[in-house]
Amino acid sequence: MTTSSPFIPVIPAGGSGTRLWPLSRKSHPKFLLDLAGSGRSLLVDTLERLTPLSSATPIIVTGRAHREAVADQVGDSARILAEPSGKNSMPAIAWAAALAEREHPGAIIGSFAADHVITPKEDFWKGVYSAIAAAELGYLATIGIEPTSPSSAFGYIEAYSSDAADEEAIALRSAGALSVSRFVEKPDRETAAEFVKSGRFMWNAGMFVVKARVLLEALDDLHPAMSDAARVLAEDVTNGELSAEGEELWEHLEPIAIDHALAEPLASRGAVCVVPASFDWDDVGDFGALSRMASSDDDAEMGVHVVGSAPVLSEASRARVYSDSSRPIALVGLNGVSIVDTGDVLLVVEDAKAQEVASLVKRLESAGFGSLA
Amino acid sequence: MTTSSPFIPVIPAGGSGTRLWPLSRKSHPKFLLDLAGSGRSLLVDTLERLTPLSSATPIIVTGRAHREAVADQVGDSARILAEPSGKNSMPAIAWAAALAEREHPGAIIGSFAADHVITPKEDFWKGVYSAIAAAELGYLATIGIEPTSPSSAFGYIEAYSSDAADEEAIALRSAGALSVSRFVEKPDRETAAEFVKSGRFMWNAGMFVVKARVLLEALDDLHPAMSDAARVLAEDVTNGELSAEGEELWEHLEPIAIDHALAEPLASRGAVCVVPASFDWDDVGDFGALSRMASSDDDAEMGVHVVGSAPVLSEASRARVYSDSSRPIALVGLNGVSIVDTGDVLLVVEDAKAQEVASLVKRLESAGFGSLA
Repeated sequence: MTTSSPFIPVIPAGGSGTRLWPLSRKSHPKFLLDLAGSGRSLLVDTLERLTPLSSATPIIVTGRAHREAVADQVGDSARILAEPSGKNSMPAIAWAAALAEREHPGAIIGSFAADHVITPKEDFWKGVYSAIAAAELGYLATIGIEPTSPSSAFGYIEAYSSDAADEEAIALRSAGALSVSRFVEKPDRETAAEFVKSGRFMWNAGMFVVKARVLLEALDDLHPAMSDAARVLAEDVTNGELSAEGEELWEHLEPIAIDHALAEPLASRGAVCVVPASFDWDDVGDFGALSRMASSDDDAEMGVHVVGSAPVLSEASRARVYSDSSRPIALVGLNGVSIVDTGDVLLVVEDAKAQEVASLVKRLESAGFGSLA
Repeated sequence: MTTSSPFIPVIPAGGSGTRLWPLSRKSHPKFLLDLAGSGRSLLVDTLERLTPLSSATPIIVTGRAHREAVADQVGDSARILAEPSGKNSMPAIAWAAALAEREHPGAIIGSFAADHVITPKEDFWKGVYSAIAAAELGYLATIGIEPTSPSSAFGYIEAYSSDAADEEAIALRSAGALSVSRFVEKPDRETAAEFVKSGRFMWNAGMFVVKARVLLEALDDLHPAMSDAARVLAEDVTNGELSAEGEELWEHLEPIAIDHALAEPLASRGAVCVVPASFDWDDVGDFGALSRMASSDDDAEMGVHVVGSAPVLSEASRARVYSDSSRPIALVGLNGVSIVDTGDVLLVVEDAKAQEVASLVKRLESAGFGSLA
């Protein structure tokens, strides 16, 4: 690496991922699962992908309820900050940024979701290097994913290549980054199709690389209570836990995503850039996404992919089975169906309708099955 | 009833119905299941449908392995003959016919499958009365089902209306029966379509009504060893079981269906007639058939039909669930899928491919799951 600033990865690990229920539960969120079939959880994969780039121990920010499970998975390879409650991504990242700046002045942080699948990591690293180079210039740098379909499940980033001849514009171009004109939240399919057709849009994978100081100063301007609190919390934290006073402060923070709190307003000021990604990325949002991953792995249209130890017998099936029980599963016909056989519930889902698992999970409580959520 | 001959129903209850596995098993065949959702098994439904027509206790012929289960279901309302081994339908019916003739000389027997669904029973009775009237004339009378689709899953009966002016032809017509020119085994779909279009064909539901003496004398001619043995076995049987000698005799019988042994050769002699049925009939051959029954019951295109006690939550699903466990089942999407959740195996089957369950069951043994068959 040619950067002179220390680079510290930050991994906000929150949200249970209801669309992957019942694999993911409130008590056992998506990032703790081995969904890529790598033998490691998505969180551990994420951490291992980032560790070679790190100048100091990466920081994971997670809910207090998951602290132990996360610690069991990552051991000493990450530092864990335990959130007293879920406050969306901005408070978590601001807290980590303040800690990084306090311990490593001039640090660049890179925030990456704990539950995405990325291959190959060498290409990911290239993207991060470019983003770090752009962050050195003072930008909030993001990494944008080349859209492969007009998906309405992702947010979009509109980019443009500045042809300005000033030194900064030249430096940005030489870092391999484009300027960002705006972020767009999940559009409808028609709008998404126009975006993709235009060639100017990338998927927003929620990857942000920025100098900790730049981030905190931007918050000083936009959300001063947030940056003030983050600096206090960075002093307050002991062994990843906040004191009673720190907790009180945390509870008063505005729950907001970094996209709305920082990325969107900074983009309108021309302070955000995007590095086009050259790696494969999937947010593994639902069982449909898992099936697509599996079929590209197998390079097979038909067949049954089994995650777990259950014996499966099938006739002309294209399906994906998740089961750790030894109870045999028989499949006949079926084209694009996922089956999740757990001890306390069975889910059968049509991959094309996999997003609707979230609606079902919402109804669990009122249907008297809150304990399954 | 206007007939003067005693009428004795015979119910051959054999075959496990592999296309309904794992609801049906070798040890727990289809006829023992409550597939119509009536609260009674198909066998008990069949028996109750026939009892009001009976002049004497109906006879059930079943495998020795199922004798106890059958007795538990039917109690004193039927007489059970236990076959030492499966020999297809002709030996079973011949044995029952010989017993009926021995105890009720001049009896007419009516043989009906143990595992079909028929409604309404009043219309069924009308069909049987007509068949009995035809059997009085010396015919082997069958009841034919008006085809509602060019199914290749059923055999067909070709009928013609004789315009002969002789007394017998007039009597046959007045009984509401047509002459049968031939039986055709399951045709391909194209041939089936021609059959249906011609208007001359009916589905063969395996219902045969005939004087016991006529049946035995036809066998004397066509399969003399069979009728000889049947008469001996009718004397041999005690409490439904054969002696060692009887068993020895049974084991040497030719395993053959009544269709091939009697119906086809007698049709070519002009000795078979058919009564067109005015009732709804389903052989409940596979999960697809069960789903069709369910959807006509519910009169609903969408929705989940649950057989058993499992709680089911669904989002936009058209499915059928069979489970006696209390484990909840969640369904998302799916259009025409059946789920069978048993203690030792889970089956998920696309209704349109339901016939292929039989292929899977054939592979159970070689796949190391013979105990599930």
